[in-house]
Amino acid sequence: MESSIRLTQTVQKGGCAAKVAALELRKILARVKFPASPSELIIGAGTFDDAAIYKVNESVALVQTLDFFTPIVDTPKLFGQIASANALSDVYAMGGQPKTAMAIFAFPLATMDPEVAVEVLQGAADTIEASGAALVGGHTIDDDTMKFGLSVTGFVNPKAVWSNAGAQTGDVLILTKPLGTGTLTAALKRGEATEAEIHDGLESMATLNNVASSLDAQGLSAIHAATDITGFGLAGHALNMARASGKSLEIETAQLPRFERAMEFLNKGFLTKAHRTNREYVSAETQFAVSDAIIQQLVFDPQTSGGLLLSVSADRADSILKAIAPKFPFARKIGRVGAGAAGTYLHFQ
Amino acid sequence: MESSIRLTQTVQKGGCAAKVAALELRKILARVKFPASPSELIIGAGTFDDAAIYKVNESVALVQTLDFFTPIVDTPKLFGQIASANALSDVYAMGGQPKTAMAIFAFPLATMDPEVAVEVLQGAADTIEASGAALVGGHTIDDDTMKFGLSVTGFVNPKAVWSNAGAQTGDVLILTKPLGTGTLTAALKRGEATEAEIHDGLESMATLNNVASSLDAQGLSAIHAATDITGFGLAGHALNMARASGKSLEIETAQLPRFERAMEFLNKGFLTKAHRTNREYVSAETQFAVSDAIIQQLVFDPQTSGGLLLSVSADRADSILKAIAPKFPFARKIGRVGAGAAGTYLHFQ
Repeated sequence: MESSIRLTQTVQKGGCAAKVAALELRKILARVKFPASPSELIIGAGTFDDAAIYKVNESVALVQTLDFFTPIVDTPKLFGQIASANALSDVYAMGGQPKTAMAIFAFPLATMDPEVAVEVLQGAADTIEASGAALVGGHTIDDDTMKFGLSVTGFVNPKAVWSNAGAQTGDVLILTKPLGTGTLTAALKRGEATEAEIHDGLESMATLNNVASSLDAQGLSAIHAATDITGFGLAGHALNMARASGKSLEIETAQLPRFERAMEFLNKGFLTKAHRTNREYVSAETQFAVSDAIIQQLVFDPQTSGGLLLSVSADRADSILKAIAPKFPFARKIGRVGAGAAGTYLHFQ
Repeated sequence: MESSIRLTQTVQKGGCAAKVAALELRKILARVKFPASPSELIIGAGTFDDAAIYKVNESVALVQTLDFFTPIVDTPKLFGQIASANALSDVYAMGGQPKTAMAIFAFPLATMDPEVAVEVLQGAADTIEASGAALVGGHTIDDDTMKFGLSVTGFVNPKAVWSNAGAQTGDVLILTKPLGTGTLTAALKRGEATEAEIHDGLESMATLNNVASSLDAQGLSAIHAATDITGFGLAGHALNMARASGKSLEIETAQLPRFERAMEFLNKGFLTKAHRTNREYVSAETQFAVSDAIIQQLVFDPQTSGGLLLSVSADRADSILKAIAPKFPFARKIGRVGAGAAGTYLHFQ
């Protein structure tokens, strides 16, 4: 039985757009006194990487991440799938494989059919199973608006972590999924598009970012840095990679993969608050050689379960693209890594 | 700077009382098709244990748990401390030591001073530091009502896990903290008590359930089963232990440690929805030889960051009590484990 509820009509703020804006969060965190990190913590929150890396022994480290949000699509099962793929993505972005997941579930028991909860959880269970991880627990609370997400733990070889800090001058940048889920889901929420009309975007968001399983050892070793594109948009996450790596990133906007209707919807002004806050987040360190306002909005478009941005050896870029094409047919080379430039880390051409 | 906001006045439902009632959650979960668990998952969700146990190798297993809720106290820093102690408790309840924590934070940016967020996070950071774990990340969203909690991972020797399934006939039951936080915080929310008047309850909720650090090897090996008392109350969690162990538990209500004002507040009817749903949860399998209605409410009182219920060798019970007394002065022997009785698992005398 499928429920006929339209989940996006039950919430005010949808998906990663409801994430607390980066600048506001930084200000809050800057005022908290955190203790020193233990030596086992190889990667913590300091570099704005996708997940933390905590060493267990010489061959195993934990990759840990947590994400949850309000519905961005109408179909409950699809929401469970997308929220899960989105949370699992951070483990893939570090080069890890997911092992365990715990559900974070806020559900409006008083106003919503329990069948909706069953479907959300079924979507999550299916996607977690496809990732090879086990759903080991979670917590459910009664709340006015639904939220769902996962806390995920993966394993990674501590010597083979894909940090966002490893980009090397001369690397080629690959983006594995099209951009535009922010404006697609904004249109859906406004009733300006149906799920059927944006099905390519929905399918993409439900796709696991398991790039590693398509690559051989040569391909894996050619990946110097990775991050996944989520709420801060391509620009925000690319800036974090550039800063952490101490390099500039040169992105060819003509090469950016995008969903068919994304440019149309951006042109119609189907935006979120994050389009503005993402621009503010990067503006001081970003240069636009392209004046097209819609292309600019595309790089600020907040993604849910967006693609991986990979920084790879130039001589391996084509073979990596070919290897991942069956799973990621829209993956493209979108630019290259330059030498570190004082202050201006991002160049959009 | 301390903010003067009264957090309990900003939410409709407080603390573990807002947990989705056990029976409703079971009905939902029963309809989801979950895949088979991998062999590494030593303890999953099936036995209603406090946390999952996932084996890394012969000497290390992960203990994983996740909990979050709306404010149950007025002071932001105290709320961060209590929510953190509550989440960390499930790792201690499995005999583990916490290693990493990730924050789950929903914050009403539009209506609440960011200083409140700073204080909640500072309370959390302090309590996590005291536990020896590292705060490695988290996720913050903009939401109408505040919620805070943690996803916690600990390490445990897979051969020394304290499950809730190991209670043995003849064991003595020890409860490490007084009961009554549900009615104390209900009174606070109604404005019938101040934080100063229930300070013993607040202090108890902020106390880490790190019982293991007070025990030597003999004491540790005498603990056959453990669980922590949270939203389902003493009765609900004791029933889960009894069922999982296939034993009956005989509890002497006269021996139950309780906060000074808890009986007064229960008598005045300062109850939560959970008092009723917790009674429903256990009623078919529970026998009361005591008719005192207030004592009955005490065992259904939903706890936040409640004590550990330990099932220990009878000959070690006194030495364990003595060893933990400096940290847990109100810990008491509250009953014993009987042989499994068909259907009636819990006896309150």
